[in-house]
Amino acid sequence: MIETPYLLFLGDAPDKLAAKVAQGIRDWRPDNAVGQFRMEGCKADMGLPDMTLAEAKAAGAKTLVIGVANRGGVISQAWKKVLVEALEEGFDLASGLHNLLRDEPELKAVAEATGRQLHDVRIPSVKYPIANGEKRTGKRCLAVGTDCSVGKMYTALCMDREMKDRGLKSSFRATGQTGILVTGEGVPLDAVIADFMAGSVEWLTPDNDADHWDHIEGQGSLFHVSYSGVTMALIHGGQPDALVLAHEPTREHMRGLPGYALPSLEALRDTALPLARVANPDCQVIGVSVNTQNMSDEDAKAYLAEVEDRMGLPATDPYRYGAGKLVDALLALG
Amino acid sequence: MIETPYLLFLGDAPDKLAAKVAQGIRDWRPDNAVGQFRMEGCKADMGLPDMTLAEAKAAGAKTLVIGVANRGGVISQAWKKVLVEALEEGFDLASGLHNLLRDEPELKAVAEATGRQLHDVRIPSVKYPIANGEKRTGKRCLAVGTDCSVGKMYTALCMDREMKDRGLKSSFRATGQTGILVTGEGVPLDAVIADFMAGSVEWLTPDNDADHWDHIEGQGSLFHVSYSGVTMALIHGGQPDALVLAHEPTREHMRGLPGYALPSLEALRDTALPLARVANPDCQVIGVSVNTQNMSDEDAKAYLAEVEDRMGLPATDPYRYGAGKLVDALLALG
Repeated sequence: MIETPYLLFLGDAPDKLAAKVAQGIRDWRPDNAVGQFRMEGCKADMGLPDMTLAEAKAAGAKTLVIGVANRGGVISQAWKKVLVEALEEGFDLASGLHNLLRDEPELKAVAEATGRQLHDVRIPSVKYPIANGEKRTGKRCLAVGTDCSVGKMYTALCMDREMKDRGLKSSFRATGQTGILVTGEGVPLDAVIADFMAGSVEWLTPDNDADHWDHIEGQGSLFHVSYSGVTMALIHGGQPDALVLAHEPTREHMRGLPGYALPSLEALRDTALPLARVANPDCQVIGVSVNTQNMSDEDAKAYLAEVEDRMGLPATDPYRYGAGKLVDALLALG
Repeated sequence: MIETPYLLFLGDAPDKLAAKVAQGIRDWRPDNAVGQFRMEGCKADMGLPDMTLAEAKAAGAKTLVIGVANRGGVISQAWKKVLVEALEEGFDLASGLHNLLRDEPELKAVAEATGRQLHDVRIPSVKYPIANGEKRTGKRCLAVGTDCSVGKMYTALCMDREMKDRGLKSSFRATGQTGILVTGEGVPLDAVIADFMAGSVEWLTPDNDADHWDHIEGQGSLFHVSYSGVTMALIHGGQPDALVLAHEPTREHMRGLPGYALPSLEALRDTALPLARVANPDCQVIGVSVNTQNMSDEDAKAYLAEVEDRMGLPATDPYRYGAGKLVDALLALG
């Protein structure tokens, strides 16, 4: 539905984490991104060619994808200037921000005048049911994190890729704008009305073959006070058979919450597993996924070994060292 | 904003629990309800005079309040016939259903033609922030339940009334349609967009005097897979200083979920308290509120004594026996 390839708009991203959407597309659909567009002060870099709108157009780009997520999702005046120019140059726009492209009168007017499309992937397009909690066939795996943005989506994408590489039945189930832009479908969970959150996750992960695994994209953290309700709905709506604990060891405090320390992996396990067993009494914690991007190879391997020893669970950075251990642990559940 | 007094519309309520909204108004604003309107097959009864629309109009009723909550909130054709007649007879309509009055073309057209108002109290009227988790001044109390509809709102209303009777600083903070219809303000939490749930609760319970208590209306249950995400957001957005455990001992399974057993009060305590301490490390469980409406006086008192002994906490049915014990326990926190 969204025309490819993309030009990735990084705006004035204050850091790399803010450009999570662009990074996800870069890592999981690299062929779809011809370049990046950065404004003054941008602190993110996807390692793609920096392009003007005209250069990207000449390189074949069809859609300008807003690859940067702001807290609260505000479309600033500085951004709007670029977006209007992009429409005028013939690009469609795609965005996962809370503030909708379609709600900006100027963008809407220019899009209509130029015949371009505004894709707001955050908006639910389905009337989701209230969750009924009924047991579904097939298997489901969910990563739960000590914090937001610690690698839950990457864990699911890596495990899905590993299973497909082995010829096993597997689906990645997107619950956020990046995942939806990566896969082309999913539930924009953080934009769903509260009462229907768990039901939307049931809808996303329906009955399936007994040997099929859904890898559900995690959101938030039970320990992140801004978003824990979304995480809770994923755990109960997803009724996972397997949980993976996701962690980023160099984080100094919960993302966006300076007064809040990260929980230990043990606390995460002891909190998430009993809650998951409300919906699925057979649920197991099968491994630990560590985001080691800020660690040396030596430090990362030492940390993973220490975690394996301490937790009695396989631990890996699935993006850096492969998801084989985690998939082995899934399959060992039988 | 909503004109009183009301005629309470009970529709074809399949049981008393389905008419929770009407019951709340009946119990907490009895002067505002002149009568009830029941359709064939209605199993609920507020003990108010049964009235036709004309009789209620003659008795002074200004607004027909939909006092019955359906799963998923559907406005049936049979209901619509009554609602149209009510508009034509000169009533305003007020509703907390998910399906909005204003989204029904026939109701909207008749309301416009007759100059009547459609009040959808479920719709958020505020752009809520994302929760920031910052410590707020003043004190907050939240009831968490073993299940939905076990008396969390009544617990908060009873404790608020008891504190006001003692001349103490206290507010009831409504988070559902009944509470909003009772108090005239609040956050319709189950209709809030997922990302803003906890922020809406922070907004609802702002900084206050050090000796002021907010009694926050609870929603759902951490053990109810359909709604647990809403409960989680209340616990983290409300950053309660005190939790009250709410329970209905005769419930055979989780409401609407035949395969799900209720948790024990111990399991509720051990699940809710560590989660609450993420947002407020000083949080304490201060007592147990038991809904004994389906028990004899003798059975209720024996049950409460057993709970007090087992849990080491004051236990009462605040609606039946008063909230004094719970308020004493709050004040003992200092």
